[in-house]
Amino acid sequence: MAEPQTTRTPSAKPSMRQMADAIRVLSMDAVEKANSGHPGMPMGMADVATVLFSKYLKFDASRPDWADRDRFILSAGHGSMLLYSLLHLTGYKAVTKEELSNFRQWGSKTAGHPEYGHIPGAETTTGPLGQGLANAVGFAMAERHLNARFGEDLVDHRTWVIAGDGCLMEGVSQEAIGIAGRLKLNRLTVLWDDNDITIDGAVRLSDATDQLARFKASGWAVKAIDGHDEGQIRRALLWATRQDKPTLIACKTKIGRGSATMEGSHKTHGAALGAAEVAATRLGLNWDHAPFDLPDTIEKAWRAVGRRGGKLRKAWEGRLAAHPQADHFTRAMKGDLPAGAFDALDAKIAELVETKPAQATRQSSGAALTELFGRIPEMIGGSADLTGSNNTYVKDTPILDTPDYSGRYVNWGIREHGMAAAMNGMALHGGVIPYGGTFMVFSDYSRPSIRLAALMGIRVVHVLTHDSIGLGEDGPTHQPVEHLAALRAIPNLLVFRPADTVEAFECWKLALEHRTAPSALALSRQKTDAVRVTASDENLCARGAYELRAADGEAKATLFATGTEVPLALKARDTLQAQGVPTRVVSVPCFELFEQQPKAYQDAVIGRGTVRVAVEAAIKQGWERFIGEDGGFVGMSSFGASAPAPRLYEGFGITADAVVEQVKARL
Amino acid sequence: MAEPQTTRTPSAKPSMRQMADAIRVLSMDAVEKANSGHPGMPMGMADVATVLFSKYLKFDASRPDWADRDRFILSAGHGSMLLYSLLHLTGYKAVTKEELSNFRQWGSKTAGHPEYGHIPGAETTTGPLGQGLANAVGFAMAERHLNARFGEDLVDHRTWVIAGDGCLMEGVSQEAIGIAGRLKLNRLTVLWDDNDITIDGAVRLSDATDQLARFKASGWAVKAIDGHDEGQIRRALLWATRQDKPTLIACKTKIGRGSATMEGSHKTHGAALGAAEVAATRLGLNWDHAPFDLPDTIEKAWRAVGRRGGKLRKAWEGRLAAHPQADHFTRAMKGDLPAGAFDALDAKIAELVETKPAQATRQSSGAALTELFGRIPEMIGGSADLTGSNNTYVKDTPILDTPDYSGRYVNWGIREHGMAAAMNGMALHGGVIPYGGTFMVFSDYSRPSIRLAALMGIRVVHVLTHDSIGLGEDGPTHQPVEHLAALRAIPNLLVFRPADTVEAFECWKLALEHRTAPSALALSRQKTDAVRVTASDENLCARGAYELRAADGEAKATLFATGTEVPLALKARDTLQAQGVPTRVVSVPCFELFEQQPKAYQDAVIGRGTVRVAVEAAIKQGWERFIGEDGGFVGMSSFGASAPAPRLYEGFGITADAVVEQVKARL
Repeated sequence: MAEPQTTRTPSAKPSMRQMADAIRVLSMDAVEKANSGHPGMPMGMADVATVLFSKYLKFDASRPDWADRDRFILSAGHGSMLLYSLLHLTGYKAVTKEELSNFRQWGSKTAGHPEYGHIPGAETTTGPLGQGLANAVGFAMAERHLNARFGEDLVDHRTWVIAGDGCLMEGVSQEAIGIAGRLKLNRLTVLWDDNDITIDGAVRLSDATDQLARFKASGWAVKAIDGHDEGQIRRALLWATRQDKPTLIACKTKIGRGSATMEGSHKTHGAALGAAEVAATRLGLNWDHAPFDLPDTIEKAWRAVGRRGGKLRKAWEGRLAAHPQADHFTRAMKGDLPAGAFDALDAKIAELVETKPAQATRQSSGAALTELFGRIPEMIGGSADLTGSNNTYVKDTPILDTPDYSGRYVNWGIREHGMAAAMNGMALHGGVIPYGGTFMVFSDYSRPSIRLAALMGIRVVHVLTHDSIGLGEDGPTHQPVEHLAALRAIPNLLVFRPADTVEAFECWKLALEHRTAPSALALSRQKTDAVRVTASDENLCARGAYELRAADGEAKATLFATGTEVPLALKARDTLQAQGVPTRVVSVPCFELFEQQPKAYQDAVIGRGTVRVAVEAAIKQGWERFIGEDGGFVGMSSFGASAPAPRLYEGFGITADAVVEQVKARL
Repeated sequence: MAEPQTTRTPSAKPSMRQMADAIRVLSMDAVEKANSGHPGMPMGMADVATVLFSKYLKFDASRPDWADRDRFILSAGHGSMLLYSLLHLTGYKAVTKEELSNFRQWGSKTAGHPEYGHIPGAETTTGPLGQGLANAVGFAMAERHLNARFGEDLVDHRTWVIAGDGCLMEGVSQEAIGIAGRLKLNRLTVLWDDNDITIDGAVRLSDATDQLARFKASGWAVKAIDGHDEGQIRRALLWATRQDKPTLIACKTKIGRGSATMEGSHKTHGAALGAAEVAATRLGLNWDHAPFDLPDTIEKAWRAVGRRGGKLRKAWEGRLAAHPQADHFTRAMKGDLPAGAFDALDAKIAELVETKPAQATRQSSGAALTELFGRIPEMIGGSADLTGSNNTYVKDTPILDTPDYSGRYVNWGIREHGMAAAMNGMALHGGVIPYGGTFMVFSDYSRPSIRLAALMGIRVVHVLTHDSIGLGEDGPTHQPVEHLAALRAIPNLLVFRPADTVEAFECWKLALEHRTAPSALALSRQKTDAVRVTASDENLCARGAYELRAADGEAKATLFATGTEVPLALKARDTLQAQGVPTRVVSVPCFELFEQQPKAYQDAVIGRGTVRVAVEAAIKQGWERFIGEDGGFVGMSSFGASAPAPRLYEGFGITADAVVEQVKARL
């Protein structure tokens, strides 16, 4: 652990408080100019952030992508001006004065909430409360894992989080602190902005939790300080670096600290202070500079903070250059896959076309993992306590656990949301490619994190098994009906529903190749026949939809299907062909990839002019894209029921006969 | 508080353990016959449940709907055979031997997980972990509230929960225990099946939380006992009834208790034990009866347990008959609205058509609440810490709080999921009609509970404000884009997006009138013009979609819109009319209600043969139902951005001009 660096400043060295006031004024002014935003939190946490950045946070403002930097995560993302102020003050090039003055405006980098990929220094996109905190657990896991694999010369950093009361009230926080405590993630520190205020007023209106006791119960080391006392902040941060557990520091603060008359009021939370209050606050802080102008000494002091880590960064680069695993590390951090990543998988696909295994697609997914896991050492698997059901575990994989974090499988516990959020953090950290399993119906639990992965454009793979009424007896509480549509609704999320083992292999390959989108694999509990029985040089699933069987004769009907309903469409086709209706079958493993195809290809696949019927054991919503307004649909229009799967398919009328009837009614 | 009743049994009184063994054997046998299910939990918790039902639970098996019964909630819903065994043993008429032997089969009442409305005695639908526990908080809140309003003569009961490790690991549990602790819900007791086992193995694989300390931190009274020791169970349950806080009893149990060789193993969790193990277990328990047959003494003893509360129930009925508020109480518990519930609202609608207020639909919703809240005393409002933004608070409403629970507004805190789950519990308890607010994007957080409300068919109203990019500067993390589609995907959920104040009033009325479906109201942050400017005797929103403006001349185009995009469609219509294109505008406040209309009405509204274009500041998915395959759509296809709302509409091309262009391109 590197010792904290002291800041080198010019002779007229401003006090820590004066440096913090720069954050206060910038935040207040930016919100004022935008007439929108949240000044209270940046003003309240300015002191803590100033000490953290100037004394403890390992970073180099000139190299936001330095792999061994500490990660700073603003879980209370509404306080974005705290982050933007810090980035500007410490000299992140992209975060100019103009950007600050364009806070929350069209085209600016300074969005309402910090957005990953939109502005350097935003390690993750935050705003929906609790997410950053739960992401941070994944960051800390990735760090410990890579540290175990590459050694402390390359990986030796901390994850610091600023979280608010809202972050701690959201349920996902409990999942996150449970995981972090269990794994003894001692490189993780949460700085809780303990300001007793929420939007509706005092925290006590809705909560009486002793947060220190709560965190302690889950295995955290905890400490409470005055968040405006420099000495206490320094000592607490130092203390945090010396624990063998994750650490919570409750920073007692006043929201809107420094505001002339509104300090401590929830009115500073989410609106501009107003011209009079801004002027009075300027006066009170003895700050006689125009908005976004900084006094020279303070600017210089902050710039020095931004350069503080330069030496460490250069030393690290030297170590990297000399490291035997330098190439491997660099490739992994870039997110590139190893050479030959898919060789084993591709070879197996050729075999599968011959062997035609009839198995559940969750088993197919497990088989794909077996071919991938050894070739792609970045992959880290896991399940929310459904390992055997999700087929996510590759034989003999050691568990990622304390004290040896080198394992590649995570026992997430019954924490779908925490898992999804932590997987986001792992992917954002870099160097690892996370995938995690649960039942598809429980994607509802993890949905807020899946959405953020899609918004951020990061590679996280959700293995969602038991993907329809086909799971049978567990009944409607466990049977996804609307989940395919609901997941397909999320922009930039690839939703795959492979029909058999070949398609499952192809879909896994696509999920790993797509670096700028998360994926969800919808996989069956029940056994299903192989449908891809002829070799292809192409990854057909990459087209999103493709003609699986041509019609014998000029096609009069087109059947669309996904997953376990593809064999049913094939059966219907046989019946129709026997009755003189030339029928083609289109497999649709991924709506989103289909939308990216050239229009001519789309038109050819869709086959307008033929009678079109789709079959999927789910709701119709979204299928009109394929079947048009008058097409037929065989699927669900209600929740499912509890019974063995075949009885359910029959009971809900999802049968080859129903498909045939729908076609014939339209001929 | 009534003293616990002792069981009157015939002379050969079986031991508590023997009675518990009846649960064990029924559970094991039913799972065996179905070859599907979860025997481990019912066997492990049989002793606790037996003591609870025979000594403490206030119920009368002959009257599952007795309003003042204690509520028993099996949060660990996979252990459904525990509940079904208890219902059968205590003499719930509908839960016959045949039903037990048809466990998990098509058409049986004994579904894989307990389903509310499907079998008497299932107070809520459970299975998705954590939900039952969080529902229970709502039950306990409703009880305290009604107790405060109607007095202990009518309302004086407890809520008992059996929860597993999974329930406690799910984040929603933290939200639930936070609310319960804050409100000092001392009629709520959680019996935690502390069996150290999850599906993947030992709990310690994924968790090291000290649950007692955690609950204590949130204001609960806690106690740990041996869950197989009758004396300890009795004393703990008695202790629970005497606390001034909610209570957690950690019941240390062995999963699959009684199983001959598999006791304590996670293998008993989710699969049939197998014929050999079942036979050996029978032998070990000295149980020589055929499956589903019960020895006479045990059957009699259990039936006596089922009758135990009869006397209390009759006494309560006597009190009810004599109570001055008997009619009011009975009506409220039935879920009927008071006479004249909508008089004020209806009168105001007539006014609004004249005054044509231009305001945000969240304000319209608030105005509707002002007209409803006084007339419908069952309504209980609340917000997940966004009261001012959600417009959910009706002036001068006292807060539902400890020690006076008679208030009608809940400060839920930043707990969307816990709020939604507790609202489900409140609705299920009866006597209250809950509504709660948050930003629409955070419906992702509460989605698992919204889904269960839809599955159960209960009246819960979600007030979802800030319903599009129109919220502006907060940016894409807060802007719903896919949420309308995702919510519309849930079967039996009414998703309303009113266009103005009149529509908002109508939609509120529909939400309250629909007793067998939850509703979600999508409401704007931004101001929007009145569009309903002529009087109608009909609630036009009840049609789901209706012609808001006819074309001047024979219609060549139809524009569909919802919410804040309706004025934009009207503007486009004016332009088109001016250019000689007769255009009608259809407002579509509720897809689901439109689907319930007669086909002729649907066809008339849709207007096939005209050029059809829809405009909604959200994704297209689902709109094909209206616009057909070739129709135009003006909306979103990506996440939003951070900027003032007008700039966003312009930037994403959601303008009247774009609508006009889409029409003209198709003429």
